[in-house]
Amino acid sequence: MSLAEQVLEGNIRAAARLMRDIDDSRPQAIEELKLLYPHTGNAYIVGITGPPGAGKSTLVDQLTASFRTQGKKVGVVAIDPTSPFTGGAILGDRIRMNRHSCDEGVFIRSLATRGSLGGLSRSTSDVALVMDALGMDIIIIETVGVGQDEVDIVKEAHTTCVVMVPGLGDDIQAIKAGILEIGDIFVVNKADRDGADRTARELCTMLEMRQVVTGSWNPQVMKTEAQRGTGIDELTAEILKHREFLFDSGSITDFLRERNQRHFMDILRDTLFKKALACMSDKGSIDRIVDGMINRRIDPYSAVEDVVTKMMPEFKR
Amino acid sequence: MSLAEQVLEGNIRAAARLMRDIDDSRPQAIEELKLLYPHTGNAYIVGITGPPGAGKSTLVDQLTASFRTQGKKVGVVAIDPTSPFTGGAILGDRIRMNRHSCDEGVFIRSLATRGSLGGLSRSTSDVALVMDALGMDIIIIETVGVGQDEVDIVKEAHTTCVVMVPGLGDDIQAIKAGILEIGDIFVVNKADRDGADRTARELCTMLEMRQVVTGSWNPQVMKTEAQRGTGIDELTAEILKHREFLFDSGSITDFLRERNQRHFMDILRDTLFKKALACMSDKGSIDRIVDGMINRRIDPYSAVEDVVTKMMPEFKR
Repeated sequence: MSLAEQVLEGNIRAAARLMRDIDDSRPQAIEELKLLYPHTGNAYIVGITGPPGAGKSTLVDQLTASFRTQGKKVGVVAIDPTSPFTGGAILGDRIRMNRHSCDEGVFIRSLATRGSLGGLSRSTSDVALVMDALGMDIIIIETVGVGQDEVDIVKEAHTTCVVMVPGLGDDIQAIKAGILEIGDIFVVNKADRDGADRTARELCTMLEMRQVVTGSWNPQVMKTEAQRGTGIDELTAEILKHREFLFDSGSITDFLRERNQRHFMDILRDTLFKKALACMSDKGSIDRIVDGMINRRIDPYSAVEDVVTKMMPEFKR
Repeated sequence: MSLAEQVLEGNIRAAARLMRDIDDSRPQAIEELKLLYPHTGNAYIVGITGPPGAGKSTLVDQLTASFRTQGKKVGVVAIDPTSPFTGGAILGDRIRMNRHSCDEGVFIRSLATRGSLGGLSRSTSDVALVMDALGMDIIIIETVGVGQDEVDIVKEAHTTCVVMVPGLGDDIQAIKAGILEIGDIFVVNKADRDGADRTARELCTMLEMRQVVTGSWNPQVMKTEAQRGTGIDELTAEILKHREFLFDSGSITDFLRERNQRHFMDILRDTLFKKALACMSDKGSIDRIVDGMINRRIDPYSAVEDVVTKMMPEFKR
């Protein structure tokens, strides 16, 4: 029985193995994903993003528990930036999720940001696809939102929650300028801290100042204390309210069109590049080009054009 | 006279125009870059990275002044993440650089992280190439180091300085775990603040614990107060010391090989994708694929394989 068939039967070990194959970029993984594809598209994806230290992991843990009490199966994809400025702390946080480790209705997977050739958003959507096929009703994607990579990942989500926290200092508050456009729901976590009300008020004010198109979604600012579980059910309810809006308003159509087009483009870019590298498998040819570049005898733009013209002969100018 | 020729004559306006053309992905820009390429490879590239609020912009400003007193021409590429979690604050910082605005020996260029199709590291290296051709002796690349994108950018630099700052809180200090490998020099800025000595000592300890290969570079921890200019000349001297090491030890050979290979690969990936899109210019064909994906009648992996097989016929399995 193929891995894909086992995944469709709900086999968690098979899902984990397929995700490892995806990580390792094994060609066989693509064949399995093809088999899974027709059976997917059912999961609802929730994105949780925000600066380091906002308490996202704890919030995800609580949301998971909340959705579980509603009988929903929950998948979690946690993006662990092993790259410079986070690393250890976030991997450590994952340990907290252990209370769900005996629950067959919860599937947690960490993704490292380093070394994902096809791009992190590509790996994230492939992993989410496997969780979808495995029968997860809700998939939570948690990411430290700072770079363009993370914004791309957030675009996967039907509903994006931006998590802020009071008192992270001016530098981090300056952050707020750019986030208004990506959040469907804003969460001020650690709401027991000094300054929580001020942070929430400031967010509200900034949201009110925006140009609002009639009939569009109106993002709310919610307060939570994830550590104690305060405000979690309200947040879950707001997520489901946004879901209802997406479907009732018909916005879901544009959303799906954009997301699927992005997937196609990502896979296209990745596949073209891999095929080109396979074609240049005569490793010497790359070395010769690089040598020429170092000596400035040849420039990379012309070298690439030569290679591409040979590979895609119809595209000569 | 072509833009490239004007740039080679030191025409700053021409350089600015070419950079705009690069931003806008005009095909003509590639032709100009080809003409510039043989005349480049002379500039020394310094990377400055660190978390938001570490005072990087001020430090870059001071370094620029310091290199100027040595008679060197200085280019600055500042990566402004217009994407979520920074934005305004960083653009604002740029204003400080104005004291160099009448100095023909300084060329400053901000790059937005958003919407750079070929990837930010690609735009950064193209812009650095123009500055190199313009005759800049030193090119400083300043980036908020958090995501994979920024790590890729830092790889452009001959010497990478990682800037830390005391008292940014535990979450941000946890950051330190992953940065040891990318820094050639570590800078504790705002060294007048409480905890500066502790931060410096911790960094030293972490550096000492590393496995050190004999004959490899031994990164120092420097203290600066960029605001007052304290420690800047020492930092400049250390950068030049690292440069000497690169050349004397022969490490420069591997560095150049890696960098040039990466450039070639980046341009290859980008060009292949653009040609493929041009080939699918019958926009309807993409729409048909996306529709099929939404209805789960076709999967993107097979659709991409079909397209790629048509474009690169020799790569049928």
